Amino acid sequence: MSVTAPNGFRAAGVSAGLKPGGSRDVAVVVNDGPSRAAAAVFTRNRIKAAPVLWSQQVAEGGRVRAVVLNAGGANACTGPAGFQDTHATAEHVADALEDSAGEVLVCSTGIIGERLPMPRLLDGAQQAVGSAARDGGLDAADAIRTTDTVAKIAFKRGAGYTVGGMAKGAGMLAPELATMLAVITTDADLTAPQCDGLLRAATRRTFDRVDSDGCASTNDTVVLMASGASGTTPDEAEFGALLTEVCDDLARQLVADAEGSTKSIAVEAVGAADEADAVEAARSVARSNLFKCAVFGEDPNWGRALAAVGTTGARFDPDEVNLAINGVWVCRRGAIGDDRSKVDLSGRDVTVTVDLQAGSAAATVWTNDLTTGYVHENADYSS
Amino acid sequence: MSVTAPNGFRAAGVSAGLKPGGSRDVAVVVNDGPSRAAAAVFTRNRIKAAPVLWSQQVAEGGRVRAVVLNAGGANACTGPAGFQDTHATAEHVADALEDSAGEVLVCSTGIIGERLPMPRLLDGAQQAVGSAARDGGLDAADAIRTTDTVAKIAFKRGAGYTVGGMAKGAGMLAPELATMLAVITTDADLTAPQCDGLLRAATRRTFDRVDSDGCASTNDTVVLMASGASGTTPDEAEFGALLTEVCDDLARQLVADAEGSTKSIAVEAVGAADEADAVEAARSVARSNLFKCAVFGEDPNWGRALAAVGTTGARFDPDEVNLAINGVWVCRRGAIGDDRSKVDLSGRDVTVTVDLQAGSAAATVWTNDLTTGYVHENADYSS
Repeated sequence: MSVTAPNGFRAAGVSAGLKPGGSRDVAVVVNDGPSRAAAAVFTRNRIKAAPVLWSQQVAEGGRVRAVVLNAGGANACTGPAGFQDTHATAEHVADALEDSAGEVLVCSTGIIGERLPMPRLLDGAQQAVGSAARDGGLDAADAIRTTDTVAKIAFKRGAGYTVGGMAKGAGMLAPELATMLAVITTDADLTAPQCDGLLRAATRRTFDRVDSDGCASTNDTVVLMASGASGTTPDEAEFGALLTEVCDDLARQLVADAEGSTKSIAVEAVGAADEADAVEAARSVARSNLFKCAVFGEDPNWGRALAAVGTTGARFDPDEVNLAINGVWVCRRGAIGDDRSKVDLSGRDVTVTVDLQAGSAAATVWTNDLTTGYVHENADYSS
Repeated sequence: MSVTAPNGFRAAGVSAGLKPGGSRDVAVVVNDGPSRAAAAVFTRNRIKAAPVLWSQQVAEGGRVRAVVLNAGGANACTGPAGFQDTHATAEHVADALEDSAGEVLVCSTGIIGERLPMPRLLDGAQQAVGSAARDGGLDAADAIRTTDTVAKIAFKRGAGYTVGGMAKGAGMLAPELATMLAVITTDADLTAPQCDGLLRAATRRTFDRVDSDGCASTNDTVVLMASGASGTTPDEAEFGALLTEVCDDLARQLVADAEGSTKSIAVEAVGAADEADAVEAARSVARSNLFKCAVFGEDPNWGRALAAVGTTGARFDPDEVNLAINGVWVCRRGAIGDDRSKVDLSGRDVTVTVDLQAGSAAATVWTNDLTTGYVHENADYSS
């Protein structure tokens, strides 16, 4: 399933020796058409990896024949030589497909500031193109894992077409696109401008609202490829809703598998003057190390959450704000509400609701707890 | 020494039973004059604790007779009842001193969202005023500790006068004043407006640039009290430099004792277009959980630091930025520089230097590593 659920796509994931231990580390997703309309969104970090700089140019053309992805190295902060490596990878895949490098997107993930072992990567890319098949979606999703413990895939059926997707990302997960790679495919017939508009709308409310550890990556890429193989031109609103569902599903899988996490936390801001205020307030709570440690300890320490809201510019009156944890309104009108001991934090899913009492807008930001496991994972291993 | 190093001040720290285990938890610092000029700066968090709301009014008058401080409870998010508690505390101390409550500053620290046990606090305050003495500075510094493992004190001698100080703060240490309480005293003869200008200038470059865990507090207060007891009217520039030294000394002590920390990290941004850019770039690195975990693991993972710089609006060209860790230029012109294995991270002190190559301004932000100890401390204990 995954990216090969829609018609018109082949994929593969192979082991090229970039990761230790011989696990899969190079993937391709090939669009055999008849259409190759596409769009992509990228990290807003100003330090952009070579594959992002390359892929931005490819995406501008609105056509993508294939995406080649590798784990085992981000190819970020590698200078002109690193950019050449990306270019060579695209050329290599294009040659194998007898197509144009200008329509090959490249995604890399792994440690920043190291060159990729190019002979191995090129061999792997060649092998992946050679073995790309209709049943290769799961292998591709497996190959792009870094510290991800499970492969992330999703798909949904629409009226006469399908949307599929895969994603990776477990650390450096933060705003303006979580640190992640995602490939979404569809056999619906869409133009490139449609892909662009629909993808931006969907990511804005899904991947953009995953904030695992507040660290924005150099490599974030989300690409949508439309093969048109179903022959169906979808209703835009219906397609957009389905695409958003797939992105939301993948984004939630990222949070559920975030490095070292034991809790998935939905921070809902409600009663906001506008959506931007809601996102700002929710994101500030999602970034509070102190609050996230408390959740790890199953301590409903709501003062830490409210203190985070207080650092924002969102419109609210400190004497009117309410806050609930898992449905218990522990803070009412900025002061002590219901008994905090009534809050049950024993499950994996935690919901924090901040009621700003300033309007009717709402937004949810997804995060996770801050744990000793996260520290171990990021202290003991270079990634 | 501490706050009683300058003439004209008495202090005490007593056990009122607010902290478990009978350790000191209530402190007073009394200014016996002849002058009582003062100024204070406070948290910019919009969720302000009751003692901050009270003390802001007191500070506006420019005169402070005494400061009463308690650990064991922040009296934040406690509503009108919490404000009454602060008011009652000030009145109680004023009565004991036969003075005006309008010149009694109140500071509280501890858990947010719980009422203080008032009978015990008032008894403790009374006892503290009764025992306040010229040699009470160290007891006062001890009483305001929360998760601080050591008391923080400092003093400097000027030309005919002295500046002393004490501070607390080990978690929720973040910008726009680290989460902390600090009392600075001097026997120099200064006007209230002088105190205000000098204190703001000193804190802007010291306490404001401590960013331990990115969490801004509801209770931050730094107060400067001038007794005039030395009879010396100081040179303003010289006094300002001395005051900055005392604040810097205390701020560095906060970082050195930050919750669970094993490394003190100075993030220097140099070559910035202006000071604001330098602070923004340095603060972004100081807030990168991923980089701070790497430092805990003694891994010179410079890509994580550079990625943090890339999220800022500071002026720089990604292809021109240089980055050094403990003097080894691991990143040159945005790409791989000297061998990262040359970086020695075995000591406590770590310096990260980001050269933006965009001008000549510089700034340093102080932080610490993110450790399993920090997570334990904030997951296992409500604070």
